[in-house]
Amino acid sequence: MAELPKKYKACVYSEPGKVSTKIETLDMPEPGPGQCLIQMTHSGVCHSDLGIMENSWASLPYPTQPGQVGGHEGVGKVVKLGPGSETSTVKVGDRVGVKWVSGTCGNCPQCYAGADALCQQAKVSGYYTPGTFQQYCIGPVNYVTPIPDALDSADAAPMLCAGVTTYAALRKSNARSGQWVVISGAGGGLGHIACQLASRGMALRVIGIDAPSKKSVVMDCGAEHFIDVTAHDDKSIAEEVVKLTGGLGASAVIVCTASNKAYAQAMDFLRFDGTIVCVGMPEGKPQAIAKAFPQVMVFKQANITAVAVGTRKDAIECLDFAARGLVKTHFRTEKMERLTDVFQEMKEGKLIGRVVIDLQ
Amino acid sequence: MAELPKKYKACVYSEPGKVSTKIETLDMPEPGPGQCLIQMTHSGVCHSDLGIMENSWASLPYPTQPGQVGGHEGVGKVVKLGPGSETSTVKVGDRVGVKWVSGTCGNCPQCYAGADALCQQAKVSGYYTPGTFQQYCIGPVNYVTPIPDALDSADAAPMLCAGVTTYAALRKSNARSGQWVVISGAGGGLGHIACQLASRGMALRVIGIDAPSKKSVVMDCGAEHFIDVTAHDDKSIAEEVVKLTGGLGASAVIVCTASNKAYAQAMDFLRFDGTIVCVGMPEGKPQAIAKAFPQVMVFKQANITAVAVGTRKDAIECLDFAARGLVKTHFRTEKMERLTDVFQEMKEGKLIGRVVIDLQ
Amino acid sequence: MAELPKKYKACVYSEPGKVSTKIETLDMPEPGPGQCLIQMTHSGVCHSDLGIMENSWASLPYPTQPGQVGGHEGVGKVVKLGPGSETSTVKVGDRVGVKWVSGTCGNCPQCYAGADALCQQAKVSGYYTPGTFQQYCIGPVNYVTPIPDALDSADAAPMLCAGVTTYAALRKSNARSGQWVVISGAGGGLGHIACQLASRGMALRVIGIDAPSKKSVVMDCGAEHFIDVTAHDDKSIAEEVVKLTGGLGASAVIVCTASNKAYAQAMDFLRFDGTIVCVGMPEGKPQAIAKAFPQVMVFKQANITAVAVGTRKDAIECLDFAARGLVKTHFRTEKMERLTDVFQEMKEGKLIGRVVIDLQ
Amino acid sequence: MAELPKKYKACVYSEPGKVSTKIETLDMPEPGPGQCLIQMTHSGVCHSDLGIMENSWASLPYPTQPGQVGGHEGVGKVVKLGPGSETSTVKVGDRVGVKWVSGTCGNCPQCYAGADALCQQAKVSGYYTPGTFQQYCIGPVNYVTPIPDALDSADAAPMLCAGVTTYAALRKSNARSGQWVVISGAGGGLGHIACQLASRGMALRVIGIDAPSKKSVVMDCGAEHFIDVTAHDDKSIAEEVVKLTGGLGASAVIVCTASNKAYAQAMDFLRFDGTIVCVGMPEGKPQAIAKAFPQVMVFKQANITAVAVGTRKDAIECLDFAARGLVKTHFRTEKMERLTDVFQEMKEGKLIGRVVIDLQ
Repeated sequence: MAELPKKYKACVYSEPGKVSTKIETLDMPEPGPGQCLIQMTHSGVCHSDLGIMENSWASLPYPTQPGQVGGHEGVGKVVKLGPGSETSTVKVGDRVGVKWVSGTCGNCPQCYAGADALCQQAKVSGYYTPGTFQQYCIGPVNYVTPIPDALDSADAAPMLCAGVTTYAALRKSNARSGQWVVISGAGGGLGHIACQLASRGMALRVIGIDAPSKKSVVMDCGAEHFIDVTAHDDKSIAEEVVKLTGGLGASAVIVCTASNKAYAQAMDFLRFDGTIVCVGMPEGKPQAIAKAFPQVMVFKQANITAVAVGTRKDAIECLDFAARGLVKTHFRTEKMERLTDVFQEMKEGKLIGRVVIDLQ
Repeated sequence: MAELPKKYKACVYSEPGKVSTKIETLDMPEPGPGQCLIQMTHSGVCHSDLGIMENSWASLPYPTQPGQVGGHEGVGKVVKLGPGSETSTVKVGDRVGVKWVSGTCGNCPQCYAGADALCQQAKVSGYYTPGTFQQYCIGPVNYVTPIPDALDSADAAPMLCAGVTTYAALRKSNARSGQWVVISGAGGGLGHIACQLASRGMALRVIGIDAPSKKSVVMDCGAEHFIDVTAHDDKSIAEEVVKLTGGLGASAVIVCTASNKAYAQAMDFLRFDGTIVCVGMPEGKPQAIAKAFPQVMVFKQANITAVAVGTRKDAIECLDFAARGLVKTHFRTEKMERLTDVFQEMKEGKLIGRVVIDLQ
Repeated sequence: MAELPKKYKACVYSEPGKVSTKIETLDMPEPGPGQCLIQMTHSGVCHSDLGIMENSWASLPYPTQPGQVGGHEGVGKVVKLGPGSETSTVKVGDRVGVKWVSGTCGNCPQCYAGADALCQQAKVSGYYTPGTFQQYCIGPVNYVTPIPDALDSADAAPMLCAGVTTYAALRKSNARSGQWVVISGAGGGLGHIACQLASRGMALRVIGIDAPSKKSVVMDCGAEHFIDVTAHDDKSIAEEVVKLTGGLGASAVIVCTASNKAYAQAMDFLRFDGTIVCVGMPEGKPQAIAKAFPQVMVFKQANITAVAVGTRKDAIECLDFAARGLVKTHFRTEKMERLTDVFQEMKEGKLIGRVVIDLQ
Repeated sequence: MAELPKKYKACVYSEPGKVSTKIETLDMPEPGPGQCLIQMTHSGVCHSDLGIMENSWASLPYPTQPGQVGGHEGVGKVVKLGPGSETSTVKVGDRVGVKWVSGTCGNCPQCYAGADALCQQAKVSGYYTPGTFQQYCIGPVNYVTPIPDALDSADAAPMLCAGVTTYAALRKSNARSGQWVVISGAGGGLGHIACQLASRGMALRVIGIDAPSKKSVVMDCGAEHFIDVTAHDDKSIAEEVVKLTGGLGASAVIVCTASNKAYAQAMDFLRFDGTIVCVGMPEGKPQAIAKAFPQVMVFKQANITAVAVGTRKDAIECLDFAARGLVKTHFRTEKMERLTDVFQEMKEGKLIGRVVIDLQ
């Protein structure tokens, strides 16, 4: 095995609170017990990274510090194992992925319940721990995700965040093959993957709701119907969904968009016994789901549930759908040096699809 | 078999909108295809009967008419089968119960989903159909509930409404034996049965919340802890539940009381991955469950669900617990002539426990 | 509505024990309470009909009688409702299907458990009750299955038996979209529908096992792989399945063929935590599933389960897949007069695909 | 913290193949990454230990070696953490338990499926790794089980093997509170704990089957009925269970005894839709479950499933029932020096209840 360099390049938040990144040269870290060192090749750029860099999330427990390496959906190759990892299923040379949750204890009530993000020892990649916008990254051998041979690293990167989360949401909805699911925000970063996983991966019937500019991407992603959110009021959206679903409403609604309005609409077109899954987190002061009235819940025998991020198992299953060619993220590739520009574009709402940073 | 009388006594709402009932003499009805005629012996009096009599429910599709026979939790003996019911499992001489939903089609999507109250042909006993405050009553042979031999008719009556509903709620909560469940309104008509079903019937650990006057009944019903709702604010109730459950919160909350405040409190002491079950329906303008924020739902991986009434299967299972002596309703017995007084007492909030009318 | 004729044609078993049918003229029956009269247009011919006609099933409680009208997968139009069915969801003019179980009580422990075939009042169409090889047939309004508008009656007929049963088996296997399922007897009457339901309807990955002549039909039905049962021994079949499934084995095995050997093979290529679903019933003296050793069950945490026929809900969901064009039965149409010949062909093993009798 | 001694006492198999143990003095081990060092105080003695010592299990991959420290249900106090375990939920001073599976990778398909014993890196305590018959033992911090404060160490020890396994079996049976479960071998080491977990912990109704000498222990453990296996033939056992369960049979059968005959009996008294759970592993040549006929499986819609050992979560839940006083193992305590005698007693079938070795 070639010797590792002593230094490598990382893209850090140089002035948290502003859109500003800078490439720095860092010392090569040493993997500790239970850890591996990964030579990163690709990292997706997610809207959450912008929030962390800008310190704009009210709920962050402490401000992001200058010098923080961001990023939380990255792929690379294992180049070194820490002590005690010799018998791990992960070997030197394996391609692996780093996710939003960089690791969990695996052994607390939250972990047992499949609530990885709620593990009290969960760390967020690119915020609590150095993230994936760097050439080398440390991860726990038992939490990094193996990348299937048939899947390109650039294709895999966005699946590790948007893919896993929406896959977990679809599973948690309990919708069964042949049933109708509505994806709110169907053309967005999460939504366009949810549409593909639902339709091609899980044989669900998809109705996508989004702005008219997203219609073609939503239909390409396997939706049977598209509802233009700008051409309807809440009442007529509900009527449309009920009509399209043969009069019953949707068995599940996955709210991928961070919009209180989308949550408020969902209850009206939900089928009795159906399930709303909360994924998108609206900004600003929290508002209750507007029509989550006990009376309506009872009258519909409705269910509301939520996912934060999926589990290791969700990640493996989700990547398997991608490796089979059933799900493809829309993305373009950029060099590390362009990261600030990418964030600027994202902030201005000009970004179409995802950007994957080539870290080599 | 003794011949049936031509006439019988029924207690009707003489002036809907007011608390007023009157005993009338009615012609004996003839059971139609798929129906049976039941000689009623006992009927519980439920708060919903008061709402129907007073026409005080905003959601009733039409006003209750003078002459309506009320009541929806009754027990009696089958005295005649309609045509086509000869091969039914219900036979002449069987004791059976009449429930809130007097019958369903059994063959629509709602019925398949176990949502009996949502069946488009569901009829409400004592509102759409002549109810159980009468000496003879008609019911569908495939929807009346067999009463176990070991269970007195008077004991069985209240189980057919309060029992079935709370049993269905406990099952739908997915709480497993050994887990903590909070019953809000634990000393009420629904709550005190829920406590017994949960603790003695299903091996759940119960914390009851109610006013201090209810403490002894709640503890008698199997709760391990009681929280006096008047001695705490929302914050300290949540702290108390979290402390009593070893720091995690309750796996399930069954909101039996018709109070928006109780719904608002529930989210704060719910365990991650836990479930709030909506049962009680607050009066007045519907309000969203106050802390059903998408952000909190995601952070807790929380679940909210609801039951209207249970199914035939729920009724049978619930009565089985009662027949084994694990659940007992607190009630006193009154004669038919006293029904108006009973409703008056109920309206004034003076009623303690349930009243069962002796119809013989 | 046109008046009904007084007489109509039916195809009866003229000499049970032998392959012999005869067309007779019968009196038009009158639908009783809860029943409807259906003008049949199509009926599939199933191997079970042959068994009933020949009295060759050891487990039949009494011998089939001369004059019995056979058939149990038929489609027609409702022409008359019996008393008490006016408010039913089934209306005069609706196309409906008659299934193997002609009706259930809907109200016994077996019915509650979704075990329709085990209902103590279940009657078998074409054996206990006059079946579907006739121009008019009686059925319970709440048990006949509505036929979707988009589905031809001839296409619908075989779905009502082979379709429903295999659909119920696939659901009961708990296999999830993206997982591998092996269909044993994949090219047969049940198997070729199971392949389509699994692959196109439920997004499962299918490996079909059958004789080499069935390869093309199995692959056309959506299988990803075919294993020629004649070219392998038990050991090499297991090795092949394990290899094709990435080393783990199949998450589910649906044994559609009536072969003890197929059951014996299944355990060897079952994934840990996987499920064998018994569908096919081998003839002759019953044999235990050869490798259902407690030691192997424990070592694999294996599951074995079974379905008889599906429920009304299964039927509706299964027909919905067919109406969407995802499942097509291979069949040819024949006239009523040809029924004896069809049975003869079936007995001699010459029948390819299903035969549907045109009853008009 | 007091300094650790350099040497300590362990009880080793001195002559595998024979019943012979010897106390040796060993060097104190050092916990590696992810491990902790536990000062053991108690270890249960299980029949499996005898099999390993005697090399009598056909399925063991290699013969037990002289000097092997046996034992796999032990409790002690953590005295040292290995590198990288500082942030673990397990701290120095915590009481923890060591189980049959001493550790798993936590990150393979088998682990994801809750099949700990099938993890390819699972090691068996007291066979692959030095076990619990010693004063100090090494365990993975994320696999040892925290012991609740309210539970004595001696009481906890047997719960870690017999308790966890039967608890997992009861959960896997899907039997619900109020349903009937039969425990075969109800008075044995596994069975008498299963009876208590089922009846007091999970509100199941228990029928125990065993030899007449076990009747009083079985009834003390919460069974409602006892069937003397020596006083019945297979047919009359089935009749008895069916009668006791109101004509339907048992919803679940937990076969705790290692007897092919017990497996053969189970199918006859299983309720339709019921589940047989394989736990006991008969010795000798494996035999198929005698009545697992496809025909009977279909006719009953029966289910057969199995558990090896439970998961970490099962262990925690099971110990919680014990800490609440709902489950108590019948055992006596012996000193380390008496271990050979205890095994001799066990081999001669003279042992009543469990023995727990006091290691201090």
